[in-house]
Amino acid sequence: MANVYFDNNATTALDSRVLESMLPWLSSQSGNPTSRHVYGRSARDAVEHARVQVAEACGAYSSQVVFTANGTEANNFAIKGMAGNLPSAQILTSAIEHPCVTRPALMMQQFGYSSKPIAVDSSGKLSLENLQQQLTLPTSLVSVMLANNETGVIQEVAIVAELARAVGAFIHTDAVQGLGKIPLSFTDLNVHAMTVSSHKIHGPQGAAALILDKRVDIQPLLHGGGQEKGLRSGTENVAAIVGFGVACELAVANRIHYASHTQLLRDQFEQGLVDIGSIKSSVMIFGNKVARLPNTSFFAMNGIEGETLVMALDRKGYAVASGSACSSDSTEPSNVLLAMGIDKDLARGAVRVSFDATNTPAQVNDFLVTLNNEVKRLKELTAIAA
Amino acid sequence: MANVYFDNNATTALDSRVLESMLPWLSSQSGNPTSRHVYGRSARDAVEHARVQVAEACGAYSSQVVFTANGTEANNFAIKGMAGNLPSAQILTSAIEHPCVTRPALMMQQFGYSSKPIAVDSSGKLSLENLQQQLTLPTSLVSVMLANNETGVIQEVAIVAELARAVGAFIHTDAVQGLGKIPLSFTDLNVHAMTVSSHKIHGPQGAAALILDKRVDIQPLLHGGGQEKGLRSGTENVAAIVGFGVACELAVANRIHYASHTQLLRDQFEQGLVDIGSIKSSVMIFGNKVARLPNTSFFAMNGIEGETLVMALDRKGYAVASGSACSSDSTEPSNVLLAMGIDKDLARGAVRVSFDATNTPAQVNDFLVTLNNEVKRLKELTAIAA
Repeated sequence: MANVYFDNNATTALDSRVLESMLPWLSSQSGNPTSRHVYGRSARDAVEHARVQVAEACGAYSSQVVFTANGTEANNFAIKGMAGNLPSAQILTSAIEHPCVTRPALMMQQFGYSSKPIAVDSSGKLSLENLQQQLTLPTSLVSVMLANNETGVIQEVAIVAELARAVGAFIHTDAVQGLGKIPLSFTDLNVHAMTVSSHKIHGPQGAAALILDKRVDIQPLLHGGGQEKGLRSGTENVAAIVGFGVACELAVANRIHYASHTQLLRDQFEQGLVDIGSIKSSVMIFGNKVARLPNTSFFAMNGIEGETLVMALDRKGYAVASGSACSSDSTEPSNVLLAMGIDKDLARGAVRVSFDATNTPAQVNDFLVTLNNEVKRLKELTAIAA
Repeated sequence: MANVYFDNNATTALDSRVLESMLPWLSSQSGNPTSRHVYGRSARDAVEHARVQVAEACGAYSSQVVFTANGTEANNFAIKGMAGNLPSAQILTSAIEHPCVTRPALMMQQFGYSSKPIAVDSSGKLSLENLQQQLTLPTSLVSVMLANNETGVIQEVAIVAELARAVGAFIHTDAVQGLGKIPLSFTDLNVHAMTVSSHKIHGPQGAAALILDKRVDIQPLLHGGGQEKGLRSGTENVAAIVGFGVACELAVANRIHYASHTQLLRDQFEQGLVDIGSIKSSVMIFGNKVARLPNTSFFAMNGIEGETLVMALDRKGYAVASGSACSSDSTEPSNVLLAMGIDKDLARGAVRVSFDATNTPAQVNDFLVTLNNEVKRLKELTAIAA
């Protein structure tokens, strides 16, 4: 049986060089970075070194990096923290945001804010017209992700930022899926806040950051001992932060290779997919007409349930996703696809394959054979059932 | 030079057995626990196994464990989350709580709640009379820590819970310093919510939990993908949670040895301290007339600045604290001591020594020699300066 992981948009394997950088902080006495003694000072220095590494990967200054435990925390902090200090005007989030952006925005409704989606077109691209139209009403905050976790579709965040700033609104971008995959510059995007996360780039779980324009008046989400200049209290996860820093450095160094390698794998995969589709079933590849992350393919075969296909592939040793891993407890069709106007039945067929630089053309080739067999088998089962 | 860590209430060294349990989750491909494939299911199983281990160490059911990234997050979640769904009556917190309890309570004032301290006596024990008196006013929530991080003084939380419940108030306890040091039972304490943390018991940073009565209607602090039954969204830090589980198991197994061993060290230390004090300077040991954690000694030498002594001891290779590590960026005297009515000047002299089961009588002996020398030196410097 194969043993192949094609679910790198959900989480990635920890790079052995990252683990090596973390081990000193896991295998000997280390201090609380707030402590004044030598153990505390060493931990503090390690955190500050990682802050520089993360900043450099994000095209930001180290003073703009606020460490959090995960992307969800950074997004909650951005949305609730920025909106909380602004007049209770509308919060606009793209219709395809991750729930850790949309739900904080919805939650703010109890404090008098309204939360409204910005439309996307059938390719998954944000409608700038819809945004402009909505910005004619008083707006406190706009949040548009850099790249979608399901389709991989990349948004023109710098233009969104320009439009938002023109009406005095604050702008946040969830760049979790962008870091390491496409060029990333906080300065160039010209947003007020940007979320990045460690475990999507072969760093450890337990570290993420909100890159934040220091001029933004933001409410902390976690109040307490005053760490991160009072913006995020709580003992720093030193080993995870150190690992995140190294993972950022590696991601920057590898990015061009990563992009070309994963794009080749994806092209190979999608060509094979179309071939399967042309015989067994019509296939739709979402977002493939617009700029996408190089590693991501999100598709559906007509008449085949995505969840069923994912489980069948899992039994053959291939790990792929049927939707966003972070909300896949539900069997509802992907709301990213629904927002794109995709038919509910087709959306239920969606499967995401997300490659990594460590994957190989041979793996993709074997996967296509397995996929072809499984699609055939499932089609036959469906035919019998019908 | 010595190389001795006596600051275990700030953070502890990761136990090598804990690290061993974490390594499989750091050194090979693992999944996002929300993913449906085998990598995801294995990660989910590991998290659920740790949940049982944490629950058992806390005298709770595994269904009552909500994992968070750290104690600060668990305390913020408890205070803001429980109060947020209750009428905006007063929130009572002991006058000696960690800032990650008091500051969330203060923050709730912007939503119409009032935040009031419950008095403690000069030994650091909560005044049950003061609590009862304050409970005559409408109260939404009471939060009293199980054991204080600075003095180690243990509170009668079960009685506090009884009094709070009698007037229909909710009751939370920060038990971060209690776990592993004294017997701990969520059920026996009869609180609605209890905070515990991994890195205080030789587990990794990056994992903690709020033990929560499932009947409590609580608002999430982190909204998103719906992890932890919707109570705490965000990708689980699998390795850290696994390590937390093992650390809990070890803490329970070691607790009796831990208590007797650290108490012997502390008795040895405090006897030596009194001897030094009787010659060089009067010494005060805070909370030593009441029930304290076995490992904690918090003292002040008249006329010697705590911060100065801590830095002098650090140069000799001894890591101790001058106050709560989590708020030691400020040089203000400990507000725990101020709440106990300790004179400001004496409070500025406070030094905390917190032992661990791995410390030895020989270390304590050598430390007393160094402490004696440093106190003598600092006294002489002060005399010259004066």
